Amino acid sequence: MYFHHVYPAAVPVLKQRRSRLQHALLGTPAVVSAGAPPSRNYPANLYEFRATSHFLYLVGIPLVDAVLVLADGRAELFVPPMAPDDPLWHGEQPGLDEIQAVTGVDRVRVLPELPAHVATLGPAGRLPLVAAAQRTPADEQLIEAILALRLCHDDFAVHELRRAAAVTVRAHAAGHQAARSGASVASVRAAMEQPILEADFTTAYSSIVTVRGEVLHNFARSGCCQAGELLLADVGAESDSGWASDVTRTWPVSGQLSPSQRAMYELVLAAQKAAIATVRPGIRYRDVHRTACRVLAAGLRDEGLLTGEVDSLVERGAHALFFPHGVGHLLGLDVHDMEDFGDRAGYAPGRSRSSQFGLCYLRLDRDLAPGMAVTIEPGLYFVPAILNSEALTAPFRDVLRRDALPRFADVRGIRIEDDVLVTASGHEVLTAAIPKEVADIHR
Amino acid sequence: MYFHHVYPAAVPVLKQRRSRLQHALLGTPAVVSAGAPPSRNYPANLYEFRATSHFLYLVGIPLVDAVLVLADGRAELFVPPMAPDDPLWHGEQPGLDEIQAVTGVDRVRVLPELPAHVATLGPAGRLPLVAAAQRTPADEQLIEAILALRLCHDDFAVHELRRAAAVTVRAHAAGHQAARSGASVASVRAAMEQPILEADFTTAYSSIVTVRGEVLHNFARSGCCQAGELLLADVGAESDSGWASDVTRTWPVSGQLSPSQRAMYELVLAAQKAAIATVRPGIRYRDVHRTACRVLAAGLRDEGLLTGEVDSLVERGAHALFFPHGVGHLLGLDVHDMEDFGDRAGYAPGRSRSSQFGLCYLRLDRDLAPGMAVTIEPGLYFVPAILNSEALTAPFRDVLRRDALPRFADVRGIRIEDDVLVTASGHEVLTAAIPKEVADIHR
Repeated sequence: MYFHHVYPAAVPVLKQRRSRLQHALLGTPAVVSAGAPPSRNYPANLYEFRATSHFLYLVGIPLVDAVLVLADGRAELFVPPMAPDDPLWHGEQPGLDEIQAVTGVDRVRVLPELPAHVATLGPAGRLPLVAAAQRTPADEQLIEAILALRLCHDDFAVHELRRAAAVTVRAHAAGHQAARSGASVASVRAAMEQPILEADFTTAYSSIVTVRGEVLHNFARSGCCQAGELLLADVGAESDSGWASDVTRTWPVSGQLSPSQRAMYELVLAAQKAAIATVRPGIRYRDVHRTACRVLAAGLRDEGLLTGEVDSLVERGAHALFFPHGVGHLLGLDVHDMEDFGDRAGYAPGRSRSSQFGLCYLRLDRDLAPGMAVTIEPGLYFVPAILNSEALTAPFRDVLRRDALPRFADVRGIRIEDDVLVTASGHEVLTAAIPKEVADIHR
Repeated sequence: MYFHHVYPAAVPVLKQRRSRLQHALLGTPAVVSAGAPPSRNYPANLYEFRATSHFLYLVGIPLVDAVLVLADGRAELFVPPMAPDDPLWHGEQPGLDEIQAVTGVDRVRVLPELPAHVATLGPAGRLPLVAAAQRTPADEQLIEAILALRLCHDDFAVHELRRAAAVTVRAHAAGHQAARSGASVASVRAAMEQPILEADFTTAYSSIVTVRGEVLHNFARSGCCQAGELLLADVGAESDSGWASDVTRTWPVSGQLSPSQRAMYELVLAAQKAAIATVRPGIRYRDVHRTACRVLAAGLRDEGLLTGEVDSLVERGAHALFFPHGVGHLLGLDVHDMEDFGDRAGYAPGRSRSSQFGLCYLRLDRDLAPGMAVTIEPGLYFVPAILNSEALTAPFRDVLRRDALPRFADVRGIRIEDDVLVTASGHEVLTAAIPKEVADIHR
């Protein structure tokens, strides 16, 4: 057990978060575990450790196998006892007093004392979540209290989101430089991840760097960039304290967009700007999504890919033939923040996912509030699995103009994604320093 | 489910491996699962997938959740059925026939058919291993058959070990370039991992890049390299087919070794060369370890850190005060190859770990045979947790010269590690292209 990033300034923040959580829990205890790194095939080869987000939110530092217990107004942290040969393999370890100092908990104890301590408490809410069938009322209460706490970020969290965004700016600049004709896709990804590693940050998710942007979750990295192709890069840094960024840019490998690529690119950019412009406290996120859909549907009609009236096209979901996913999601300690709670994080009580193709993939439908962070990431894709699907296209036979499709063969997929913080007066784009204007793309 | 690296030339190799395994199993069926990527806090955020090594060895490509069944002289592969929206998120998926073509199995089926198929078989050996208490004779039989198969690498495996080594050469060259006074430790690690990412390989284990080499498993990367310090870099690439390399170099940040650093460096290098020189078929690996120990003990005595007769110092384990770990381990699809079998991989039947400090950490004690690959990685460390330990130093009060310790305060930790293939006539150093001579270090 060790930690190497400590922010002493965070202790008051951590105390406040734990205090607010205990107030919301009305006396119900909470037991929050940090988890352990999964092993890669055999026990001694571990993936890089990433503590659970709820633990990081409340304790601030990743401590393998540690457990936070909140009860009776106190915060006690249980950590694994030092093994005799830990100092040999892992160096001098922080003492219990040092851990207490940097976390601000009331007491640090060793894990073997946990069961007896928990036995003295009433039924406690537990995180990570146990399987739905095993969940108790205390677990449910803890979910609700955490949601109330984490949906809107405090100043320290925003500070960390900005740090993650700043490194992501460098990653995308490096990618822009590296994306030349003949460069391997893997080398572009390597160039983008280098500033992230240099900062001693990690990637917040598996990077997507591909010239086949129409494959939405394309983690393959074989092949080379060719002049005439678009390179889609969905790469975000996670700060050393665990806060995420999530940014997509799409560049022409040659530095020049073809007319068809330019038309689709400007359309996605217009949709993204229009969606961002609507972000403010009180707006329903599904309406942010709809704003993007309307811009896209209008543009697809103007470009001859769809026919008909825009509101009707959007209502029927015709735009989803080209924009099948949602316009974004919550962002925080997780890239899809609190998605471990399923749609209880993204969907306000009483709201649930649509069954309509496209809208069914929307991960967020809450009324936005100051301190929330979201991504705004519309895209346009020419996905064979959609356009060749009888089931998906049949309802739109009257509005889909197949004859126009060949004209856009060099587009494949375009997505433009930024991280947006909801402020008291509107919004702030945390990743605004990453160029996305066509004028900036034409180098 | 997808795969993006396929080596058609490997099909005969894969068939031969499966055939040899079935012969060794004498009719007992085997069920070998590929596993699935662990999630990072919530289901949609996954670590990069790495199939289990036994599966990769027998099937050649990573197929999430796939299961290989060997029975009645046939190889059948069970893969997850395609989800309706897989083509949307993951692109066009390979068909069952395509998977059959690149793996050479007799039949590819979908996972829901697995239980009924297994029910028709007798008791089968299962991998990954189930807990010891649940193991059946068939499981034990499979362990032994796999050990017999995988301890000595076939030509294709050696080809892949060479590919991993070649990329590791580039990683260390990049590290050598980046390790300048004032450079952050994180930036040196980033520079070393870039060639690995560029090759679309992964790191075979969490890189250790540190100016505190005396902390043996030091994954912390904060701080900067300072002139006068030694930088220890233990970084190895894993090829896109899953084969590992594992190399350590230790460089002076300034490009110049101090006299004390030079003395210790040359001593580790001499020990490494002497150990490598003994590698040949028939030699017991513990004797390779002892060769390194003897060179180190003699040098420590010459430098005034130990007194006494070399053989006696080694017999008593006095060298372990400065060289507490083993000289190496098996290398293959895992960095510690087949360590999922515990010491059954590293220790020949009838042999077991010593209880002596130092020797107890030796991971390998087999008689070497052509086709085995091992690391040779002696080191010298000034570990406060050892040198300040009454329990560890008391037995050596008569031979440890504490008065000499201050002279080596700028050494901290040095390790030199290469990957060595046992050949019919002796050995071949797979990573020989990575400089380690003092003359090459002084740039």
